[in-house]
Parts: sequence; C-alpha cells; structure tokens
Amino acid sequence: MHKAVWSIPGLAGWILAGQAAGAQGTVGKTRESDRLPNIVIVLTDDMGYGDIGCFGATGFDTPHLDRLAANGMRFTNFYVAQAVSSASRAGLLTGCYSNRVGIGGFIVPASNIGINPDETTMAEMLKTRGYTTAVFGKWHVGHRYEFLPLQQGFDEFYGLPYSHGQWPYGADSAAGKNPKFPPLHMIEGNDEIFEINTMQQMAELTATFTMKAVEFIGKNKGNPFFLYLAHPMPHVPLAVSDRFRGKSRQGLYGDVVMEIDWSVGEIMKALKENGMENNTLVIFTSDNGPWLKFGNHAGSAGGLKEGKLTTWEGGQRVPCIMSWPGHIPAGTICNETASTIDLFPTLAGIVNAPLPEKKIDGVDILPLMTGVEGANPRDEFVYFFQFADPVANLEAVRKGQWKLVFPHTSINVEGCKPGMNGRGGEDKRVKVGYCLYDLRRDPGEHYDVKEFYPGVVEELMEIADRYRQDLGDKLTGVDGKNRRPPGRAKKNNE
Amino acid sequence: MHKAVWSIPGLAGWILAGQAAGAQGTVGKTRESDRLPNIVIVLTDDMGYGDIGCFGATGFDTPHLDRLAANGMRFTNFYVAQAVSSASRAGLLTGCYSNRVGIGGFIVPASNIGINPDETTMAEMLKTRGYTTAVFGKWHVGHRYEFLPLQQGFDEFYGLPYSHGQWPYGADSAAGKNPKFPPLHMIEGNDEIFEINTMQQMAELTATFTMKAVEFIGKNKGNPFFLYLAHPMPHVPLAVSDRFRGKSRQGLYGDVVMEIDWSVGEIMKALKENGMENNTLVIFTSDNGPWLKFGNHAGSAGGLKEGKLTTWEGGQRVPCIMSWPGHIPAGTICNETASTIDLFPTLAGIVNAPLPEKKIDGVDILPLMTGVEGANPRDEFVYFFQFADPVANLEAVRKGQWKLVFPHTSINVEGCKPGMNGRGGEDKRVKVGYCLYDLRRDPGEHYDVKEFYPGVVEELMEIADRYRQDLGDKLTGVDGKNRRPPGRAKKNNE
Repeated sequence: MHKAVWSIPGLAGWILAGQAAGAQGTVGKTRESDRLPNIVIVLTDDMGYGDIGCFGATGFDTPHLDRLAANGMRFTNFYVAQAVSSASRAGLLTGCYSNRVGIGGFIVPASNIGINPDETTMAEMLKTRGYTTAVFGKWHVGHRYEFLPLQQGFDEFYGLPYSHGQWPYGADSAAGKNPKFPPLHMIEGNDEIFEINTMQQMAELTATFTMKAVEFIGKNKGNPFFLYLAHPMPHVPLAVSDRFRGKSRQGLYGDVVMEIDWSVGEIMKALKENGMENNTLVIFTSDNGPWLKFGNHAGSAGGLKEGKLTTWEGGQRVPCIMSWPGHIPAGTICNETASTIDLFPTLAGIVNAPLPEKKIDGVDILPLMTGVEGANPRDEFVYFFQFADPVANLEAVRKGQWKLVFPHTSINVEGCKPGMNGRGGEDKRVKVGYCLYDLRRDPGEHYDVKEFYPGVVEELMEIADRYRQDLGDKLTGVDGKNRRPPGRAKKNNE
Repeated sequence: MHKAVWSIPGLAGWILAGQAAGAQGTVGKTRESDRLPNIVIVLTDDMGYGDIGCFGATGFDTPHLDRLAANGMRFTNFYVAQAVSSASRAGLLTGCYSNRVGIGGFIVPASNIGINPDETTMAEMLKTRGYTTAVFGKWHVGHRYEFLPLQQGFDEFYGLPYSHGQWPYGADSAAGKNPKFPPLHMIEGNDEIFEINTMQQMAELTATFTMKAVEFIGKNKGNPFFLYLAHPMPHVPLAVSDRFRGKSRQGLYGDVVMEIDWSVGEIMKALKENGMENNTLVIFTSDNGPWLKFGNHAGSAGGLKEGKLTTWEGGQRVPCIMSWPGHIPAGTICNETASTIDLFPTLAGIVNAPLPEKKIDGVDILPLMTGVEGANPRDEFVYFFQFADPVANLEAVRKGQWKLVFPHTSINVEGCKPGMNGRGGEDKRVKVGYCLYDLRRDPGEHYDVKEFYPGVVEELMEIADRYRQDLGDKLTGVDGKNRRPPGRAKKNNE
C-alpha cells in the first residue's frame, strides 16, 4: 500500500483515453488539456538529499524549487540506478538498472563505451509520439559518435560530452594542469565547437544551458517537447556566475545551488510565458548523492549515510520534485519508494507509447504521482555499485521499510578529514557485513536489527537472489542476463 | 541570517498598528482581518519528528496535517524546552527554559510541584488582551489545586491532570493493576468527574477532546480565543477509537496518529464553518520525541538520534506546522532553529500584550513565520535534561549548524531489543564525551568533528557557560538564577 495523499480516481485512464481519441481523430477540437504534455527533466550533478530548502537545506534559499514543490509533489524515497554519474544517467534514459544495459560506473574520456544504440532511450520512445527532444548540459553516457545524443533520439544537443571534472585542470582550478585528461570541449549537435579551459567559462555553464533551454521552450509552442536539462553543477570544480557569487551563507556550494534554483525559476517562467504551465510535467532530481570528500565544496545528504560512490542511502537516495498542475496534487509528498528508472515506463504510459521489446526494470509510478490509493508498484529496489565494470556489485536490497546490506567494501568518508575549497579530502575503505536496517525508524542506517527480524532477512535474501540471477552481481560472481554496450569492439568516429 | 521564503515586509508592524488603533478607538468599523487572531495550539505526546506524512512518515497517511503544511509553514529545526512531558509543557506555557521555572523533568501523581502561580502563563498573557482561553487534554504541569488550569489563566479545562500512562494499569493494559499509581480521573474545571480505568475509556480520549475543542470554537464567534488542545496520544498506553482501528499499515501506533490527524481536520473544519479560517493561527507540534523503547508502540524520530528522555536531536527536535492565511506564506518551510519557548513572546507580539516583568528565554520568531529576511532571532539553543530535579543538566548547546555535546550519561535505546505491544524494551546507559556535530550535514549526530573545528568548540563552550551561569546546570553543579516552584513547602488543596 502506498501513501495516497488524496485520490484522483481514473486520472490515468482519462489521459490515455483522451490521447487515444485524439490519435484516432474521433474528437473534433482537441482541448488544450488533452494535448500530449510537455516533459521537462532537470537533472543536477552530485546534489545531495538535503540540498534543497524543502528538503531541509540550511545556509541558502531555494525559493523556486520550494515553490515547485508547493505546486506539486515532493518524493522522499526516490533512488537513482547507481550512485555514480554514467550508470545513473544510463538508468534514467533506458528505464533499466544499469547492469542490464552494461553501464556499471562512470565513463572516462578514454572510454569507448556508451548506451548501446540497440537500447531504446527515453527520447527515442517519446519521438514515436511526435515529441521534439533536446538535451542541454552534461551527457556522460558515451561520447563517441554513435553514442552522442543526436544518435540516441535527441533532436538537439548543446553541452558537455562527459563530466566537467574530467578536464585538464582537475577538480580544483588552482591545482594546475592535469595531463591525464584531454581538452574538454563544448559540443553542439555532433561537433566540438570550443575548448573549455578557464574557470570563467565554467562559471557560465549554468546560465548558458538555462538560456538554451528557455530558447527551446519558446520555439516549441506548437509541438509537445521533451527537454532534458542536465546541469553539470554542483559537481566539482564548482563555479558560479557573478550574479550569484557570495549570495549564500554556505559559501560557493550554496551559491551554485542558488543559481540552479534560479535556473528552475527561469524554466518555469518560460513555460508560463508560453502558456504551457498547465500542460507540462516538470521533474527535478539529482544524478546521485553529494561527493562528501570535497568538504565545503560538497553538498549534504541531509542525515542519510555517506554519499556518492556508495550504496548507502546518502549515495542513492536523491531529492525529487514533480509538478504537473491538475494531475499531480499540489503541496503533497510521496514517502514511497520510487526511482529514476521508473520515469521511462511512467512517461510511456502518459503519452501512450509502447514499451521497448527488450525487458526494462522500471515500473509505472503514475499512481504514486497522482495520489491514487493502492499498492506501490515499486516496493522492491536493489542497490548496485561499481566504478567501471559493466557488471556491478549487488550490495543491498530494499523492500518496504527494510534494507538488507550484503558484505562488501565501502569507501566511506564520514569521520575523515574533509577536503577544502575544491581539493578532495581523505576516505577509508570499510569492510561491511550483513546488516538489516529499518528505514522507517532509521533512514540513517546506523542500527543493525537483523537479529530481531530473521524472517525479514530471509525474505530479502530471496528477493536479492532473484535480481542477482537476472541482472548479475560481481560480488558473488553471478553473470546474469545483462546486455553489454558495444565497448571497444565497436568502430566509432575515432 | 535565516531562511527567508518570500518577504511580507512590515507585516508585524501592520498587525500591531491595526490593533493599537482599534484599542484606542481611533478607527470606526474594524475590519474582520484587523481582529485579534484566534490562536490554536495542538500538542501531541511522544510523537516523533518522522511521524507526519510531510515529515516523511511511512505506513500511514496524515492528509489533514499535510494540508495544514501545504497551507502554511513546516518547521524542521523546532525544539522543545526539554525531552520530557512536564518540563516541555512548562517551557511552552511560560516561554522559559524549564530550569528557569524549576520544572526539571516529569511530574508524578505524588508530586506537589507545578508551574509557580507567580509565573505568567501564555493563557494569562492572552487574557490581558481579552482572549477566552481553554485547555482540553493533558495538563501535566501541576495537578494540585493552585496549579490547575483554571488557576493559571484558562477559562475552561476538560482533561487529564497528568500523563495517562501514570494510571494503575501501567503502559500496557494487559499488564494488570499497578498499585504504584492512584486512580486516574478526568477533570472538568477543578473537579474530578469520573475515574478512567478501562482501555475503552482511553480509546475515546482523542475524539472526546476533539469534540470539546470543536464546541469551544463554535461558542466563541464573537471573541478572540486561545485553544490549547493537548492530546494525550500517541503516548503509551495507545488506544484508538473503533473508526481508526486497523486503518494504518503501521499497526496501532499508525492508527492512533491517523486519529490525531482526523482531529486536526475536525478543528480546521470547525474554524471554516465558523468563518474563522483566515483569522486563526494554528500551531501543531509535539511535546518531545518518540519513546523508542516501546518498539512497535513508539513513533519514529525520522533519522534523528534516539528519542524522548535524551538531549539527542530525536528527543528534543519535534515536527511543527504553523498555518495563518495571509500572514504565513503557504507551502513554505523554515529550516532555522526555533523553539516552543519562542511561542510565548511571539504571540505576545502578535496580540500586542506586554511581556512578563520576570525574564523569559523565548524570542519573537514572527519574522521566521512570515518569511522576512534577516538574522534568525533564535540562533542559539541549549539542551537540558533531568528526570525530576528542578535544576537540569545542560548537556548540549547549538549555534547555527553546530551542536556541542558535553560529557554526560545518556540512556540510549537504539541497538537494544525493542519492546512490543505496549511493554517497554531494553535500554543502556552510555557514557558520552565531548562531541561536535555539524547538524547541516549530520543531523543524525553520528560523526564527531571537534578535531577539525577547534574554534567552533571554543565558541560553543563560551555560549554554554553563559547559559549555565544564568539557568544553572546540575552536571557541573552551577546553581544559576532559576526560579523554583512552590513544591512541598506550599500549602494546597490536599
């Protein structure tokens, strides 16, 4: 049973019926509200669970995001596919645990892998229903030609091929040139258009991608669109425009989040000015938790354990806000488990597009979004992690309020000396044993209660094994049925 | 600097000016909106930080409380004066840390102490401005005649003199008679009207006090009123009316909270039906955190550390929602530190009543409530605890994001075998040393960072010493300037 705020029975059916009728031409004049909704996903990078005002942030204000939540729904148990950029984004775009599509970590400039063009991306799915599609910002799911956005269902791309931290100057602009990385370029379509090599250029990224997004909205009045705005910030190296420098009481990190909040305000303003505010589903979330070892240049997991690069809650649970006037009830909260991998099938359901023939892992969470009473379609979730291998470790499993953690080595930073001003701090490798956590009472994962609930442990072991056989698990050596990306074997535009 | 959501500049001045003008008779017809606002405080007992939907509760729904938050402001760093019933309530009613008024723990049936009649209660303060005042539910700040509500500024009282757990049948109705406690009576005015000795009677308490509150609202259309509805639930022994039994997915505890949520809905309905919804300030909070050792009959601190009877965040930080249409902006959040002791001077400011001549500790937090930019008037907070002594232990101090904990013995329950179905579980005495916590990143208080921030430790030590000299501290033997209640020396109605 999921948390229902209040019911709008039959909403999903009404939308689908409206679309179907429109598609068959059996209705005369289509009402504005019957049009396919525009879809906007704003994804931030390394923003923690506690880094938005309405998720408890202190030291800076996020009035635009708070207002988005006041007009929509706040998700408090919302997970990414993996707590690392490429795997997380691959999960979002394909609706799969990243093991299934073989993106098990983060892609580096020298890498040849990416989302296999045989997979169906969210953009390709939406294009089957006539959507215009664009991505502005950070891509990071393959930067060889065949993997770039224009080959993956997007009509437009203006942004970075991978993380802006993978540039010759390292996470800290003061650290000098790092020859490990090639020059970082801005990409437009499939072309490198200029080199990024100063912090001043970094400082313009948030505003630039916002401007591109606003332009895109303005030129798509006549057609439903999918806008994927993937801000590279607040990932290190942090940079902010002059207008926001010094604005927060939380230093540069707070300033950067305030600029992202401004960006959301600009998007909402553009939707309103173009008369689209009531026909647009806006989803705001982050690609993974905060990169805590960067100390004052990292965000806050808001009391969840650890951050990015771990399967603790602070790594995989991210803030999420959705707004869709008339469909998502205003000022509500969803405390049920849901995930970025659920967005693909949910959007497919909303626009009445067929699902890919290949199996995906996401489930349709529209009932959660609209507050319909009933069982949560996403009651189970498995936590994978791996730096680079296409088959990741299955480190934990959740069902309802319970999370069972399997023995693994975790790279923890809490308790270590934090980094300062863009330089990473210390971390430590910690051997973790079997632990059962009651996430209702203990979302911070501090009290192992497995001895009190042996039946729950057994149930979760069985669930995990089911996923292990299907998706693979490097920890226990199970290969699973995962689908690999082309990788080095494939030719590309090199 | 506090988190400003959006500004309503000059609001406080406007209210005060309106009232002053009305009082002087210099305006002709008083607008409805210029009337003194009605004030409703709903206080629950042992409800944890995580026990409301919009604070992350899972397993049950609280649609009325969620709607109250959607129409008002949610406070995420809101503290009670002490994490135990009587001291917490004394702080709320007097605007003082409970050490100042000498109520340093919980009052038992055999106790002779109570709030000294020389102190000014919130009800007495509001009566100076013509308010009709009533308390329904649990009193617990002195049950001898001179300490009962009618002698402390309330026109009406219908409720319990102290905790309903202090009855002959213990926390568990199945545990049989406990001769330690005298019979528990329902009080009306100053009179014992009937004995409470069955769980069926307990099961009617929430609905009964709600009905009394609704009646009180209905008969006070012509006059500003102060309604203090102090639900004895969800303190053990838990009991719920038939209508809510089995309604939640979280057992009896969830059912009980759902009935409290219903109660809030009834209050809001009554305000609306009597045309008072826009002229009433509604404040919902809890007297302290969850009594965790009761396991499935306890609530959740939502990831904060420990619960009731401790100075950890789970003990003293409680959920708080305030609603006041036109004054408190809708759908907003305040992540700044504030406390129940601040309500007294804040209400005094709103109704333009003078503060007591004796020093109080609360500060006017109207700027936080209305979203005015500026410094947080409550940036410092001290955490006291003691079972019964009028001078409590000063165990911790907070300033901004930092909390310094002093060496003390804490009675912790996490990690111990929880109780079941109304029987208490195990606990353990833990020696705690100096610890510095960054509550921004680590609200769960798990990572001591004192070695990284020696300057912060020094500053907090100085702040604590200032409070220690003023308010006393049993831990270090400082007597302070606290004002003692009459206690056994005074004659009363025995």
